[in-house]
Amino acid sequence: MSADPRLSINQATIKYADLATALRVTAEAGIPAIGLWREPVNDVGLDVAARMLADSGLRFTTHCRGGFFTLPDGPERLAALDDNRRAIEETATLAAAGGDGSTAVLVLVAGGLPAGSRDLVGARERVRDALGALAPDAEAAGVTLAIEPLHPMFASDRAVVSTLGQALDLAADFDPHVVGVAVDTFHIWWDPQVLEQIARAGREGRIATYQVCDWKTPLPADVLLSRHYPGDGVIDFGSLTRAVVEAGYVGDVEVEIFHADVWADDPARVVRRTAEAFAAAVSPHLS
Amino acid sequence: MSADPRLSINQATIKYADLATALRVTAEAGIPAIGLWREPVNDVGLDVAARMLADSGLRFTTHCRGGFFTLPDGPERLAALDDNRRAIEETATLAAAGGDGSTAVLVLVAGGLPAGSRDLVGARERVRDALGALAPDAEAAGVTLAIEPLHPMFASDRAVVSTLGQALDLAADFDPHVVGVAVDTFHIWWDPQVLEQIARAGREGRIATYQVCDWKTPLPADVLLSRHYPGDGVIDFGSLTRAVVEAGYVGDVEVEIFHADVWADDPARVVRRTAEAFAAAVSPHLS
Repeated sequence: MSADPRLSINQATIKYADLATALRVTAEAGIPAIGLWREPVNDVGLDVAARMLADSGLRFTTHCRGGFFTLPDGPERLAALDDNRRAIEETATLAAAGGDGSTAVLVLVAGGLPAGSRDLVGARERVRDALGALAPDAEAAGVTLAIEPLHPMFASDRAVVSTLGQALDLAADFDPHVVGVAVDTFHIWWDPQVLEQIARAGREGRIATYQVCDWKTPLPADVLLSRHYPGDGVIDFGSLTRAVVEAGYVGDVEVEIFHADVWADDPARVVRRTAEAFAAAVSPHLS
Repeated sequence: MSADPRLSINQATIKYADLATALRVTAEAGIPAIGLWREPVNDVGLDVAARMLADSGLRFTTHCRGGFFTLPDGPERLAALDDNRRAIEETATLAAAGGDGSTAVLVLVAGGLPAGSRDLVGARERVRDALGALAPDAEAAGVTLAIEPLHPMFASDRAVVSTLGQALDLAADFDPHVVGVAVDTFHIWWDPQVLEQIARAGREGRIATYQVCDWKTPLPADVLLSRHYPGDGVIDFGSLTRAVVEAGYVGDVEVEIFHADVWADDPARVVRRTAEAFAAAVSPHLS
């Protein structure tokens, strides 16, 4: 069995699989690449995780995730920045262990408003400051920080970076090899500026990762878990994927699904179904 | 008892009150203005509603709502346009019956993707076409159509107009007295471009109504009902209200809350609490 040669499984899609299981079912489904999450990596320890990844033969596409650095100055902010530095080191180690074509990309979710704050503008400025603090570490480690704009329904509690244009504005102060953006269909499909901002991201050399999953209503009670298999919702993967291709992105494409039913399913079945959904909804637009 | 002289109660805030009750509790709370909804108006009939409004002494601020015209050509689209023409006539009649300072503003919610469609770009073009079809009727009736951008979490199922900038782009083809925009804090507070787009809306003479309510997480299971009293959430009414004032808006300010608990409460208590919340969170920024 083989899957699209550019498909990568983001580990969150099989959230409850441990690292060994995630690597095994992905490889067994003929999927050539995987994006990892920090928690399951650290459950086995970084060095062991790197050896397991190398043994799997899979390419490593992204490490998820850093960020959550919107707090004002103080010990909690310093701790968050230090944690991001550890995530940068993890990313470099895993990328070195992954197969040929692995990328050293750390996805950053900015974080929401601090408790009790209404200062969205200030929180966004602190994201810029945090990027400035972390960029030298990322550059030294050969890691690209990928700012991920999240859907505006998460603007208060999860990510004050809400559009691709805003993410590119934040990235503009930095070398594109050090700070790029994550283009995730779920978060940006609704944006009237999405196609022009994808083109801009390509021109500016900022597309660090392309992630896909689908949007469907009604939203579940926990809107965080409203991500679907590509093709099961209303997102036009044709126009978005062609825009990413025309913008010059030649890397792997991650499928990242947060959904209670998907998480409750057998991981081997989930990755097979992901490969099928990807082949139908995304692959035709990649060439 | 008196409330802010620019406060208007949007009737949806007391959704289960009939028209007579809505007018009575609003006037009794010392609130000088009201925005009406089509259903309770048509429950008593337009002429009766207009007389009741005139007798109440309240200013009439907006009629809610027209729109829902994203369907492709066919009888359903024609029916939607005809329904909007009736809404335009209702708006003109109610504005003529309202007190001095009443405005003839019809709020438009664009509608979502047609069932089975993934063509967001096409749906947005059909909104433009519908405005073109309705503008002559609005102009003849002396009614301003106010395009309301809705939060992007409603982009697929309720309104394909998702940002203030997009609404202004749609309005740009028309005279500002015929097509303007609704500036609603709940829908646009998250937008990194919100302040510059409010300023633009003022420069272009397009702010037809300013509506306020608050955003708070976690969102309820039905995200449509996640609107809160001003001050109960995270929206910075200071910066947004000052931007609207600096943009030259001198009209009334509606409070429009969709929330199960608010709707279950006594309408007289809801309008009093609305006046108090408005006085604390919004009034200080209006002068």
